[in-house]
Amino acid sequence: MELLDKLNWRYAAKAMNGEKVAEDKIERILEAARLAPTSSGLQPFEIIMIKNQDVKEKIKPVAWNQSVITDCSHLLVFAAWDTYTEDRINYMFDLTNEIRGFKNEGWENYRQMLLSSYPQKDAEENFNHAAKQAYIAFSQALAAAAFEGVDATPIEGFDPAAVDEILGLREKGLRSAVLLPLGYRKEDKDWLVNLVKVRKPMEELVSVID
Amino acid sequence: MELLDKLNWRYAAKAMNGEKVAEDKIERILEAARLAPTSSGLQPFEIIMIKNQDVKEKIKPVAWNQSVITDCSHLLVFAAWDTYTEDRINYMFDLTNEIRGFKNEGWENYRQMLLSSYPQKDAEENFNHAAKQAYIAFSQALAAAAFEGVDATPIEGFDPAAVDEILGLREKGLRSAVLLPLGYRKEDKDWLVNLVKVRKPMEELVSVID
Repeated sequence: MELLDKLNWRYAAKAMNGEKVAEDKIERILEAARLAPTSSGLQPFEIIMIKNQDVKEKIKPVAWNQSVITDCSHLLVFAAWDTYTEDRINYMFDLTNEIRGFKNEGWENYRQMLLSSYPQKDAEENFNHAAKQAYIAFSQALAAAAFEGVDATPIEGFDPAAVDEILGLREKGLRSAVLLPLGYRKEDKDWLVNLVKVRKPMEELVSVID
Repeated sequence: MELLDKLNWRYAAKAMNGEKVAEDKIERILEAARLAPTSSGLQPFEIIMIKNQDVKEKIKPVAWNQSVITDCSHLLVFAAWDTYTEDRINYMFDLTNEIRGFKNEGWENYRQMLLSSYPQKDAEENFNHAAKQAYIAFSQALAAAAFEGVDATPIEGFDPAAVDEILGLREKGLRSAVLLPLGYRKEDKDWLVNLVKVRKPMEELVSVID
């Protein structure tokens, strides 16, 4: 399966060479994130794509000074909704009705069910839920980058509050969840590039109930 | 890009026909989950694969009676670690040293850093972090199923505590995070199969800092 080849090819690039990734490749990587499924189809996250070098320089020190932050071509910030609100839920249900061209009773009942539960929950719980959905999309973007021959570095090692501040995310009702620099590996500076990929053996990961 | 074709093909099957998925396809779907990257490479989750019909029947009522739970071929339960422990962290670092055949000072320092932080954190915070890693793998399994022409239904609509109880997960230090029934769609019973896929337009999802 081609996906397995791509997942074997990819690794978390630890050094990048500053080369720019073509915009058509970036568009397809973002499209994979956009197509990812999310809970109730709410897509409770946004992606901030940073090409500006000054902004990358500001983020680097709050991300353990990882060189890929500034040496990447495009830095994707996956930012999840800080909570679920009525407006946010209604937006997606209205969009669905508009695109599908009809209203459906079951779907409207489901909307009411979400409206009567999600916005009342603790914001932290909602953010955690939204962040998981962002990770589904992040994962697809990561795979898509591999299909494009683009290197990527999944980064959780950063100060989310500091990144939120730099990007003004909290004012937009967003909180940064995970970073994904996209670019091209700099092999002679990357300690990880030639090391073998390590994963648990299948029998440690999966148990079967026959 | 083939990944985009597959992501467009897939949808959350709402009815399945009971047909069995060939084991070689299942193996490749699990391999995609196994290859998924996770924070610090810890792979802090397990997958319980349920083929047993009685166990599926027990789970169905605690999963909103969704028919795909029992009409799927294989029900995957992605269960995250309930917390990070020293043993769990050491296992992956030892495995890495064993597979790569050497010890590295930087890597050992990184182990100590994790040992001095993760196990001391609140278990709920650790579980939430581990669950996000499980979602990365879940997302790859979902894409892999599409590559195999296998239908899948991402399911968060279930009572995690009840599923944990049925499967005895808490005793193993695990908590169910998300379900993924795999099988084949039953088109004449599936209200979603012919509806158009709805996603936010790209400009609503992505903002660019040039």
